[in-house]
Amino acid sequence: MAQQQFSTVGKKIPRIDAYERVTGQAQYAGDVQHPGMLYACVLRSPHPHARIASIDTSKAEKVPGVKAIIHHRNAEVRWSSGGATAPRYIFNNPVRYVGDSVAAVAATDRHIAEDALGLIEVKYENLPYVLDAKEALKPDAPKIYPKGNLSVGDGSTSAPITEQWGDLEKGFKEADRIFEDTYITKHVNNAQLERRASVAKWEGGKLTVWASTQGASNARRDIAKDLGLPLSKVRVICKYMGGGFGNKNQAQDYDLMAAVLAKATGQPVKLEFTREDDFIGMHGRWASEQHYKAGVKKDGTITAVELNAVTNVGAYRKSSGNLSGTDFYQIPNFKKVVNPVHTNTVVAANYRAPAYPQSVFGFASFLDQIAHDMGINPLEMFLKNRIRMYKSKSPFTSNALEECIVEGAKRIGWNEKWHKPGASSGAKKHGIGMALGGYPFRPGLGAATIRVNADGTAHLLVGVVDIGTGAKSTMAIIASEALGIPLNQIQVTNGDTDVTPYCVGESGSRCTSFTGPAVIAAAEDVRRLIFNAAAPQLKAKPEDLDLKDGKVFIKANPSQSLPLSRAVARSGELIGRATTNPAFKGVQGKSFAAHFAEVEVDTWTGHVKVTRYVAAHDSGTILNRLPAESQIKGGVVQGIGMALTEELLIDRPTAIPLNPSYRDAKVPTHLEAPEVEVIFIEPYDPYGPFGGKSLGEPPITAAVATVGNAIFNATGKRFKELPITPDKILHAVQV
Amino acid sequence: MAQQQFSTVGKKIPRIDAYERVTGQAQYAGDVQHPGMLYACVLRSPHPHARIASIDTSKAEKVPGVKAIIHHRNAEVRWSSGGATAPRYIFNNPVRYVGDSVAAVAATDRHIAEDALGLIEVKYENLPYVLDAKEALKPDAPKIYPKGNLSVGDGSTSAPITEQWGDLEKGFKEADRIFEDTYITKHVNNAQLERRASVAKWEGGKLTVWASTQGASNARRDIAKDLGLPLSKVRVICKYMGGGFGNKNQAQDYDLMAAVLAKATGQPVKLEFTREDDFIGMHGRWASEQHYKAGVKKDGTITAVELNAVTNVGAYRKSSGNLSGTDFYQIPNFKKVVNPVHTNTVVAANYRAPAYPQSVFGFASFLDQIAHDMGINPLEMFLKNRIRMYKSKSPFTSNALEECIVEGAKRIGWNEKWHKPGASSGAKKHGIGMALGGYPFRPGLGAATIRVNADGTAHLLVGVVDIGTGAKSTMAIIASEALGIPLNQIQVTNGDTDVTPYCVGESGSRCTSFTGPAVIAAAEDVRRLIFNAAAPQLKAKPEDLDLKDGKVFIKANPSQSLPLSRAVARSGELIGRATTNPAFKGVQGKSFAAHFAEVEVDTWTGHVKVTRYVAAHDSGTILNRLPAESQIKGGVVQGIGMALTEELLIDRPTAIPLNPSYRDAKVPTHLEAPEVEVIFIEPYDPYGPFGGKSLGEPPITAAVATVGNAIFNATGKRFKELPITPDKILHAVQV
Repeated sequence: MAQQQFSTVGKKIPRIDAYERVTGQAQYAGDVQHPGMLYACVLRSPHPHARIASIDTSKAEKVPGVKAIIHHRNAEVRWSSGGATAPRYIFNNPVRYVGDSVAAVAATDRHIAEDALGLIEVKYENLPYVLDAKEALKPDAPKIYPKGNLSVGDGSTSAPITEQWGDLEKGFKEADRIFEDTYITKHVNNAQLERRASVAKWEGGKLTVWASTQGASNARRDIAKDLGLPLSKVRVICKYMGGGFGNKNQAQDYDLMAAVLAKATGQPVKLEFTREDDFIGMHGRWASEQHYKAGVKKDGTITAVELNAVTNVGAYRKSSGNLSGTDFYQIPNFKKVVNPVHTNTVVAANYRAPAYPQSVFGFASFLDQIAHDMGINPLEMFLKNRIRMYKSKSPFTSNALEECIVEGAKRIGWNEKWHKPGASSGAKKHGIGMALGGYPFRPGLGAATIRVNADGTAHLLVGVVDIGTGAKSTMAIIASEALGIPLNQIQVTNGDTDVTPYCVGESGSRCTSFTGPAVIAAAEDVRRLIFNAAAPQLKAKPEDLDLKDGKVFIKANPSQSLPLSRAVARSGELIGRATTNPAFKGVQGKSFAAHFAEVEVDTWTGHVKVTRYVAAHDSGTILNRLPAESQIKGGVVQGIGMALTEELLIDRPTAIPLNPSYRDAKVPTHLEAPEVEVIFIEPYDPYGPFGGKSLGEPPITAAVATVGNAIFNATGKRFKELPITPDKILHAVQV
Repeated sequence: MAQQQFSTVGKKIPRIDAYERVTGQAQYAGDVQHPGMLYACVLRSPHPHARIASIDTSKAEKVPGVKAIIHHRNAEVRWSSGGATAPRYIFNNPVRYVGDSVAAVAATDRHIAEDALGLIEVKYENLPYVLDAKEALKPDAPKIYPKGNLSVGDGSTSAPITEQWGDLEKGFKEADRIFEDTYITKHVNNAQLERRASVAKWEGGKLTVWASTQGASNARRDIAKDLGLPLSKVRVICKYMGGGFGNKNQAQDYDLMAAVLAKATGQPVKLEFTREDDFIGMHGRWASEQHYKAGVKKDGTITAVELNAVTNVGAYRKSSGNLSGTDFYQIPNFKKVVNPVHTNTVVAANYRAPAYPQSVFGFASFLDQIAHDMGINPLEMFLKNRIRMYKSKSPFTSNALEECIVEGAKRIGWNEKWHKPGASSGAKKHGIGMALGGYPFRPGLGAATIRVNADGTAHLLVGVVDIGTGAKSTMAIIASEALGIPLNQIQVTNGDTDVTPYCVGESGSRCTSFTGPAVIAAAEDVRRLIFNAAAPQLKAKPEDLDLKDGKVFIKANPSQSLPLSRAVARSGELIGRATTNPAFKGVQGKSFAAHFAEVEVDTWTGHVKVTRYVAAHDSGTILNRLPAESQIKGGVVQGIGMALTEELLIDRPTAIPLNPSYRDAKVPTHLEAPEVEVIFIEPYDPYGPFGGKSLGEPPITAAVATVGNAIFNATGKRFKELPITPDKILHAVQV
């Protein structure tokens, strides 16, 4: 289907639930209230590594209103999605970082629960600890796990993540020049707006959890597994969600704590994190130290890349700790060794495009520096080395990276504005920079149900939770397009595992590509039923009918038509459903991006202002332009925060996180956010729903490096360690 | 399928939601709370027939907390399911009975709303009125509607309901004796336990109504129609329901009032009826005066029956006003003329088996009297004249009425206990009586969705609201049987039009016969998908597989099997769905019953005690024995109340209902309820889901007449006017 033929897809459409969101009627997990509901709080470890010798809750239990206190001895519940290096429980002994959960209290109000926390007497036996990832890899480092501190890697045993193709030695031999350099990134928190909250309620043997999750189905799966319940006895509801960016995937320990406390007390329990809980009780993005070696021909063509890196996944393993920033370049010979390491610090795991922004920063800075060192314009360098074939062998389902680079460069005026690094005069120095990014696009398991009412209006049931991406609206748009029923005649029910079909959840930019095809297939299923009902009325065969704009008509003679409402008036209700699981064969999918920024660096204050930003994206067909643009903008702003200000600081002597709050972590606000100009290059991807690919994660990937490269262009100084704070800039420019 | 092969069907199974019901966790409409919710009350007319000259709400509006007042001038909303003789609105002018709705107030609490009612100043201009149905038919009677007081009848114009077959004149000629008599029944209230309540909430243009309804889909349809909304913009939720017995079918005026008030105020509104509202603001069973003429041969065989009747449908028409008590007899020549008449009294419409108990009382009393007059034992009389062919021409899908009579008579010991009427000695006189009953059984439109989880557990989505019948459990049982998945692995979501498929609702004993086949078809649909998933694993063709007790196996070799959980583990979720609409061709469906009672009539006090009760029922296969028996018992007790105590008394000089309350209306309590012995005769009906027929309405049909005939047997006195109160008995036995 050519894009101009779309009725609903590709427009700028406000969210279908905008009214509920802006009027405060939308019910988030934290808004859920039940009669007799209890409030829970979590006691956290003040020590980075300690064995709990004893817990005495007797004083706390005497506080009027305290209903239950759970800890590692009376609530040994495995949290299976919380750790992979070793079994992780909702309460662990030993505790492994400052902030590790020690106990939880449920009481009749939050203040009582907080007071009771202070009355729990815990005897800790301190153990040696290690905060630095490279230190932790040393043989004599304190062991956080019996087998040592190297995390599990991609397999089930502790091992570095390795990847290799081509012939590295041959590649370096073919090169005219060899470059090496090291880049460092820091732990930053996902800092989503909605704090974590969970309300658990048991009715007989059935548990309902109102969760703030990125995937209701997967949260159900995990909760069921960890509590030993069948899937049908766990209901996870998440209708509205205020962001997660990867740290609300699946179920989290607070969901399980709330469930255990609710079971123990026979009352509904709400566990809502404070912002501090949120920063230290969950996870952020893994810090990294990346050492690159590259072979480059005279004309700038890369012949080989070797990456050796250490990443800090904190005290527990919840994600890979990988680095994937080289993904957007044609590298004929490649080798990567990434060591994900445990330390006694806050856990690091998924945060929007988990393995990317760190190493896009590293590699695109490295490449920008090589271009500079070789006297090649960075635009030419990136254009020349952009990826064409996945791992140099598999074709992509679609690839408009070249157009992204060309159009983005044109829009920002690269050729007019680029100058030699540090060449602009005055105290406020202009700089321009660019980088490439993107994210995998994959198809997978999805399911959907569509009910067509007797008046021709319809209900779409999908498991998406809509973490802020507009997924609910996107699914309605896909349904509208696939059904041929106007969007305003479609109601969506989402995020309730008792009634909405399976959905992979909004993580890995998979929502649209996994669930979209199921919505289309469910629409096709119900269209067959509609045509069966309409055929006798139109005196035609079902297969000769079509449906568009709410009208059923004979394909060969569109004037022979029936309003859908009339066609199905006697049908009561027609139901379409589908479970789909498409797969790639011999191809790879990726969304691409080329980002461009102009900055103004104040050499008196060290302050960096991003004055202009152009983000050119190939995510295939854009299904809804309005939230798509918003996602690009949001990702860019997050990247700017990571580039310039954000870092979770750990106090070396005490191992205590120093700035677990919005203000102190310096998460960007509107004041720091530039206008972002978004360009969509839209190849029709043959594997995506209506040609669409992944969109949510790409924008953050390129932003950090783009800002870094612009600062280099402004100052002529290369900053190799994030964040690029004013003190670092002042130090550099004043040298 | 022979009944002994069933895995789940036919057992005694507690309700699947028993836990929620008995622990108070079940949320009924009256339990729904929303932040900022307002409470509404209704002002009712003190006059039986009056034009409203003016309404002044200014004083009421000044009461702090009053948010909106609506009445016929500012809320002209058609209530289309509320009247058919003429358009009925939620507020009408003129008002047509004492209790007619005049205005509704929404305020921040119920007490403020009640206070405000008293400050609304209404000027009424009284009109002439009529209370008696026969008076109302006279040409000079006050006209309640421009065209007069005869209700609309079966068609769209005012006309008596007529039915006729055979040759009445010839029938009477063939008779050896002709009998004539008149029987009178009174208005009784449905008196369901749960008072009516509705909570309405708008979110943008979408209305959600938490209703106490017998049919969520039909309530949605009616609300959408009356408020001019598409079906998709109205959501009706009714998860638990505390009975209606026919007066909560579809949407009611209070649903619309709550919606209009919620729209006007921008706040959620709860309108909960008082018990008095419930008795006079809705409807009860229509009173009747039935004149029968019958031709009978010497041996007791009926040759012809003529019925001329008047029924009082009250001020508005909501149902037929028909009388159908002759349905259970083989009457070769028949004529019926029923005049449904409007009067200025409380509306009369559907109450469990709407047209039956009145006229089963009339005709079975008449037949019992004929038997007596002819010296024939009533058992012989009923057995001889029991129906074989519908309207003497169409066969039934199944008919075990004969076995019901034979087995019931055996169980009560008819032959040993029957004696000549009035023959027992002493002040407390023993009596035994019987009557036949039943109710149509029809197939029709149903829909269902079944989701099978990756662990082999399942979710059934059905629109049933479960008015107390156990419909939710019945649907789960049908699903379990049809799927081959144990009942405890199936969760049911019901009664929510946004997520559950269309359901006709629980009225007309149609729920199981309409929705049951859809559940079976949806199960078959998902079984196909399961077999597709399992076939490669079992190295078999999908069509060679079966599923039972949670195991997928090769039909020809059941030892080759897979647990369902394994078969679907990689499927994510499989969804089956069906919309079914079976129809009879050339056959008719009916459930049958023969009831037997023993009574003790105290000739000193006039008190009647039902000492034993046997109810023999043919409802085809009994799907769940536990609630099935409960339904029979409940219906019998309601019939006893109608026979002995209940009557809504209207004060003649003022037209005011005198006893609109449980106590004063003398609704039976447990003290008045006898043990009811239930016998199920279970022919496997080829048209019913797993052989089942209608069950909910039959038990009330025969109970009134059975008690009346037993009183005749005890006293030798025939009571031709209900209720058979102590004063009437004392008067009769002392004559």
